[in-house]
Amino acid sequence: MLEVQGVPIGGQEIVVIAGPCAVESREQLLSTARAVQHSGARMLRGGAFKPRTSPYSFQGLKEAGLELLSWVRQETGLPVVTEVMDTRHVEPACHHADMLQVGSRNMHNYTLLEEVGRVRKPVLLKRGMSATLDELLLAAEYVLKQGNDQVVLCERGIRTFEHSTRNTLDLNAVPVLKHRTHLPVIVDPSHGTGRWWLVPSLSKAAIAVGADGLLVEVHCHPDEALSDGAQSLRPERFHQMMDDLRHVAAAVGRTVSALRPVPN
Amino acid sequence: MLEVQGVPIGGQEIVVIAGPCAVESREQLLSTARAVQHSGARMLRGGAFKPRTSPYSFQGLKEAGLELLSWVRQETGLPVVTEVMDTRHVEPACHHADMLQVGSRNMHNYTLLEEVGRVRKPVLLKRGMSATLDELLLAAEYVLKQGNDQVVLCERGIRTFEHSTRNTLDLNAVPVLKHRTHLPVIVDPSHGTGRWWLVPSLSKAAIAVGADGLLVEVHCHPDEALSDGAQSLRPERFHQMMDDLRHVAAAVGRTVSALRPVPN
Amino acid sequence: MLEVQGVPIGGQEIVVIAGPCAVESREQLLSTARAVQHSGARMLRGGAFKPRTSPYSFQGLKEAGLELLSWVRQETGLPVVTEVMDTRHVEPACHHADMLQVGSRNMHNYTLLEEVGRVRKPVLLKRGMSATLDELLLAAEYVLKQGNDQVVLCERGIRTFEHSTRNTLDLNAVPVLKHRTHLPVIVDPSHGTGRWWLVPSLSKAAIAVGADGLLVEVHCHPDEALSDGAQSLRPERFHQMMDDLRHVAAAVGRTVSALRPVPN
Amino acid sequence: MLEVQGVPIGGQEIVVIAGPCAVESREQLLSTARAVQHSGARMLRGGAFKPRTSPYSFQGLKEAGLELLSWVRQETGLPVVTEVMDTRHVEPACHHADMLQVGSRNMHNYTLLEEVGRVRKPVLLKRGMSATLDELLLAAEYVLKQGNDQVVLCERGIRTFEHSTRNTLDLNAVPVLKHRTHLPVIVDPSHGTGRWWLVPSLSKAAIAVGADGLLVEVHCHPDEALSDGAQSLRPERFHQMMDDLRHVAAAVGRTVSALRPVPN
Repeated sequence: MLEVQGVPIGGQEIVVIAGPCAVESREQLLSTARAVQHSGARMLRGGAFKPRTSPYSFQGLKEAGLELLSWVRQETGLPVVTEVMDTRHVEPACHHADMLQVGSRNMHNYTLLEEVGRVRKPVLLKRGMSATLDELLLAAEYVLKQGNDQVVLCERGIRTFEHSTRNTLDLNAVPVLKHRTHLPVIVDPSHGTGRWWLVPSLSKAAIAVGADGLLVEVHCHPDEALSDGAQSLRPERFHQMMDDLRHVAAAVGRTVSALRPVPN
Repeated sequence: MLEVQGVPIGGQEIVVIAGPCAVESREQLLSTARAVQHSGARMLRGGAFKPRTSPYSFQGLKEAGLELLSWVRQETGLPVVTEVMDTRHVEPACHHADMLQVGSRNMHNYTLLEEVGRVRKPVLLKRGMSATLDELLLAAEYVLKQGNDQVVLCERGIRTFEHSTRNTLDLNAVPVLKHRTHLPVIVDPSHGTGRWWLVPSLSKAAIAVGADGLLVEVHCHPDEALSDGAQSLRPERFHQMMDDLRHVAAAVGRTVSALRPVPN
Repeated sequence: MLEVQGVPIGGQEIVVIAGPCAVESREQLLSTARAVQHSGARMLRGGAFKPRTSPYSFQGLKEAGLELLSWVRQETGLPVVTEVMDTRHVEPACHHADMLQVGSRNMHNYTLLEEVGRVRKPVLLKRGMSATLDELLLAAEYVLKQGNDQVVLCERGIRTFEHSTRNTLDLNAVPVLKHRTHLPVIVDPSHGTGRWWLVPSLSKAAIAVGADGLLVEVHCHPDEALSDGAQSLRPERFHQMMDDLRHVAAAVGRTVSALRPVPN
Repeated sequence: MLEVQGVPIGGQEIVVIAGPCAVESREQLLSTARAVQHSGARMLRGGAFKPRTSPYSFQGLKEAGLELLSWVRQETGLPVVTEVMDTRHVEPACHHADMLQVGSRNMHNYTLLEEVGRVRKPVLLKRGMSATLDELLLAAEYVLKQGNDQVVLCERGIRTFEHSTRNTLDLNAVPVLKHRTHLPVIVDPSHGTGRWWLVPSLSKAAIAVGADGLLVEVHCHPDEALSDGAQSLRPERFHQMMDDLRHVAAAVGRTVSALRPVPN
């Protein structure tokens, strides 16, 4: 178990981390953060540096995005996780965020893993798109070996032959990883399926199978999202999903954080 | 929704079909059947014709296995599902069993699909090891086109690069299939993972994600099983799992059949 | 090494087997057979029973197709290979053809493998779409175990994540299989790539890597083919390819059969 | 077509780049360089920064390795290609080497791709382990977009279900890439198969299919190699292979560089 600014990951409570795929604007980030916080999310996600397959796609707001995350963190009190893609991103991200994410495309980027191993921030390490669980654990070892033992593993979908989803969320990974390591394991059903309408059912399954948390993309206007709109839930659907998750969590002896009253 | 000898599949109740991988002996089959029935299983599974990768592995008791299934069905009242591998197996299997299974290796065996389409028995159609969901639905169409609309689809694990499990159970398949067809969808966590210790957690997840049933391998002495011992639950673990499943089912508004008192 | 009606497979000469994907008509089959024979093909291929993913696709001329193959074999003297999909196809196919093909979708159809193992015809066994080479060798073992040792293995493309081709022809399979077995190994670049314009370069590579033969789809009017037109070469391109292959074969110390003068 | 210190890549001549997986010592590098140069290799490969799955494996000599490469380049006149894993490696590698390699694990490392796009050195870009060809071309686009158009693409094997080889060399990639881009395409049969005894036959096939070059691992004492010994050819086998390749190259209208007399 570890803590990110007072939020425990890997304990009895299932932590839901939610927010937009990419930080797009002050208004977008703040409204989404407030909405997911109200529904019970305990941390905010948002990408400032975006690894995109094509160089012609939106690449993120970069440093300006980090500053917006930092500001919304102040406003809401939600701890923030954001992705680093390069050793040069680590220092500014440490300044503005509470947890550093190493994404799927960088699971094999060993110099980056060593760099996040040298800082004293929790790390969210995503499984590579076609990585075995051995490879994921060895990637985590690159971080641990530098002295940073605050690592959370994240299953985020693997590449398969199936065309109807963007990736295939591999829920087998959760009990296998928990059998082999004490590190907390969370699940990203948004990237894992690439389809917003699959996120609620796979989130329930993730909790039933034993995940310690969820990483969920939420956007107030998915049709206008600059990236990954097809896999983003609207806040009202996210809210409904959180209600349903509380029942499944209870059935397996765990909890999901309660609603938080909207401040006057 | 359809019925197999009075057992509804695809309704509010989640149907658990359990039994040994292969029919091995009268005693083995009857004791397993009574045990799983007591714990709440509604149907019995057991292979008489076994498709094995190597010709030197145990190939099943064949017709003698069908006769044992038929006898145990009489003794217990449990409807029976068994696999057919060849058009020539269809007639004897219809005589002795209540539901015909077309296994993963035969999902693309179109003459066999047509043959089970011509009889009036429910069909359990398993997804091929590397088949897309489109291909599974088109395989079902081969059965339906012959006039047999009693088809149940079964996710049983796909081949991936992961070595720590035998297959990777693909729970995404359940909501995707249910979105695209009215056919019931069940899940086989035993073949899906190949590891008995993963079966309970993946079974919970299968129910949480929306499956209409489970196909579970149970063996009184897994170490002595003639096939697939590594993925077979002992009756007492199966019993415990069934208890846990009832809570998850309730959390998603469904039920799993209750314990059945042991007859005096 | 084995012989199919006097044509050796597995010797110094690389055997090219060509013809249409499916037998469509007397005229289509005869004109294609004469064309490929003129260019140096030593055997004729053509499907009478066609395994198709969808039940609504053309399923082959079945027995009528076998009779056309038999007739064209008489007319041209070319030995014929054709696919069997079911144990019930084996007897009629033995009557009309010189070699029985077990296709990719049936590599795991063990009762079919046993049945072709019981007859005394050479068998062309194709690798399953996602099968390992161990599994292919064990499938061959099902045939050999019945006493039929005239088995030719065929690499025909595996399923990968690549979308620009239908399958990914795996040429690594050739030297690995030849290292592990004495059975001849041939390559099907037509199914292996699914694109006619890739067939000539992959055929050259297949010969360079050590294949004992090629299985090539040729159609006089690919745009009108009832199946697999996109991967069929026109006779004139096939002719050009055969010329090119003779040079590559010579470079690795082998031969491809010479042109055969068109009979007056 | 482009040139690396006077060595053209993408022209009529097939360029063979050879050398050890990792730079281990002055003596090892020089003796290997001299041996491969004598057999006709036109460039030297050698890793100073080594991306290894486990943090406990040999990680390369790093800057000291670059200096050895630089020294051997002077001694032999062979242009040198070496891998960069991090934006911070680019400057020192530019100083000591003639071509920068971005390896398979970093094909999705977009900040690294941009950095090598900003320098004026030729780039050898390897396909990711499970990357599609579209993704490889978009990765190249990250380099090109920064103004560096000296990019060579390299097929190095993809991950499949086959266990008998380390990777599956995908020779289909060569004609598909050459159909879609003017960039030269080379093949790495050493990583592509992971087995030294498969390298000669796959190298012949790579030339037959149309590759513009080969990247081959050679080690004087493979059993003592600090990495990838199982896929390294001994110099005498490399020499024999080069002879064989000249015949295949001639059969497809190309050449492989001739022997170079050993200097007195």
